[in-house]
Amino acid sequence: MNTQHTSHQFDQELSQLKEKLLYMGGLAEEMIRDSIRALRERNSDLAGEVIDRDLSCNRLEVEIDELAIQILALRQPAARDLRFLTTALKISTDIERIGDEAVNIAERTLELNREPQLKPYIDIPRMAEMAQGMLKEALDAFVHHDTRLAYTVCEGDDAIDDLNRQILRELLTYMIEDPGSITRATKIIFVSKYLERIADHATNIAEMVVYMVEGKIIRHTDAT
Amino acid sequence: MNTQHTSHQFDQELSQLKEKLLYMGGLAEEMIRDSIRALRERNSDLAGEVIDRDLSCNRLEVEIDELAIQILALRQPAARDLRFLTTALKISTDIERIGDEAVNIAERTLELNREPQLKPYIDIPRMAEMAQGMLKEALDAFVHHDTRLAYTVCEGDDAIDDLNRQILRELLTYMIEDPGSITRATKIIFVSKYLERIADHATNIAEMVVYMVEGKIIRHTDAT
Repeated sequence: MNTQHTSHQFDQELSQLKEKLLYMGGLAEEMIRDSIRALRERNSDLAGEVIDRDLSCNRLEVEIDELAIQILALRQPAARDLRFLTTALKISTDIERIGDEAVNIAERTLELNREPQLKPYIDIPRMAEMAQGMLKEALDAFVHHDTRLAYTVCEGDDAIDDLNRQILRELLTYMIEDPGSITRATKIIFVSKYLERIADHATNIAEMVVYMVEGKIIRHTDAT
Repeated sequence: MNTQHTSHQFDQELSQLKEKLLYMGGLAEEMIRDSIRALRERNSDLAGEVIDRDLSCNRLEVEIDELAIQILALRQPAARDLRFLTTALKISTDIERIGDEAVNIAERTLELNREPQLKPYIDIPRMAEMAQGMLKEALDAFVHHDTRLAYTVCEGDDAIDDLNRQILRELLTYMIEDPGSITRATKIIFVSKYLERIADHATNIAEMVVYMVEGKIIRHTDAT
C-alpha cells in the first residue's frame, strides 16, 4: 500500500467484498422469508425454489472467500484490514449455513404439505421475521464496524429463544392431547429450531463484529 | 521468507497452529464422549463438567484465530500456506460449534436425569462414536493435507443421517403409544439431532480440506 493508486484499488476491493457479503445476506434473508411463506401458504413450488437457491448461496461463499484470500495475497494488509478480511472469511460460512437452515425449513414444509394443516402459524412467522432482521443488522454492523448495532443483535437472541421454548411447549401440549398430531408437531418443532439456529448464526456474526472492533469476547453459550 | 532462519520459524508457527487445532479437536471429542456417558450413566455431575469445559473450547478458538492472524501478518505467506491458514480460521469455528452441541447434549441430559429413564440407549452412543471418529479424521485430514481421508469422512455422514432417521422413527412410535413419554422422547430426539449436527460440522471440515487441497467444491446440502 505504497501509492495512492494501490490504496484506491484496495478500497475498491474491500467495497466489492462488502457488497458481495451484503448480497449473499440478502439472498439468505429471501430464502428464510420464502421458506416460511411456503409453509404458511402450503406452497410446495416455492419450497422447491428455496431448495434450488441453495446452490447460489454455496457459490457465493466460495466467491467471497476467494476474493478475501486474493486481497490477502495481493495487498498483505495489516491490523484493522487484516482482521476485517479474516472475519469476512468466517462470516461467509455463517451465511451459508443460514441458507442450509432455510433449505431444512423448505424440506419440512414439503413433508407437512402432504398432510392436513395442524394449526395456523402465528409465532413461527414472527420468529422468522425477527431472525431475518437480526441477520440484516449483523451484516450492517459488520460492514460499518458498528458495535452498537452488533450488541442490539445479541440482545435479540433471548427473545428468539423465548419464542422457541413457547412454541415447543405449545406443540408438546398438542401431541399429548392428540397422538395423531405427533409426526406433524415434531416437524414444526424442527422448523422452530431451524429458525433459532438462524438467529444463533446472526448472533455469532454480531459477536465476531464486536471482537473485530473491540477485541472483546462476548460469546453466548446457550445455543440450545 | 528470505532466509532459512525465518523459514524455520514459520514452520514452527505452522506446527504450533496444527497442534493447537488437534488439541482443541481432542477437547471437543472428549466433550462429546462425556456428554453421552453422562446421558447413559445418568451422571449429572459429569454433564455439568462438560458444560464447564465450553469456556476452554471458546478460548481455544480465539487463540487459534489470533495465532493464524499473527502468522498472516508477520509472514505474509502465499498460495498453499495462505490457504492453510484461512482454512484453519474457518475450522476453529466448526470445532467451537461442536463444543456447543456437546453442551446442548449435557443440558438435555440434566433435564432427562430428573425423570425416570425412558429406554436404554443403544443407537445414540453408536452415533456419538461415529461422529467423534469423523471429527478426529477430518482434523487429521486437515493437518496432513490428506484428501483421501477427507473423502472417507464425507461418506460417513450418510450413515449418521440414517441412524438419526431411525432414532426419530423409533421415538415417534414411543410417543404415539405412550403420551406420557412425549416430553422425554422429544429431548432424546434433540440429542440425536445434536449428534447429527456434530457429524455435519466434521463433514464441513472435510469438505474444506478437499477444497483447500484440490480447489474442488464437494458440498453436501442435506443438513437436516
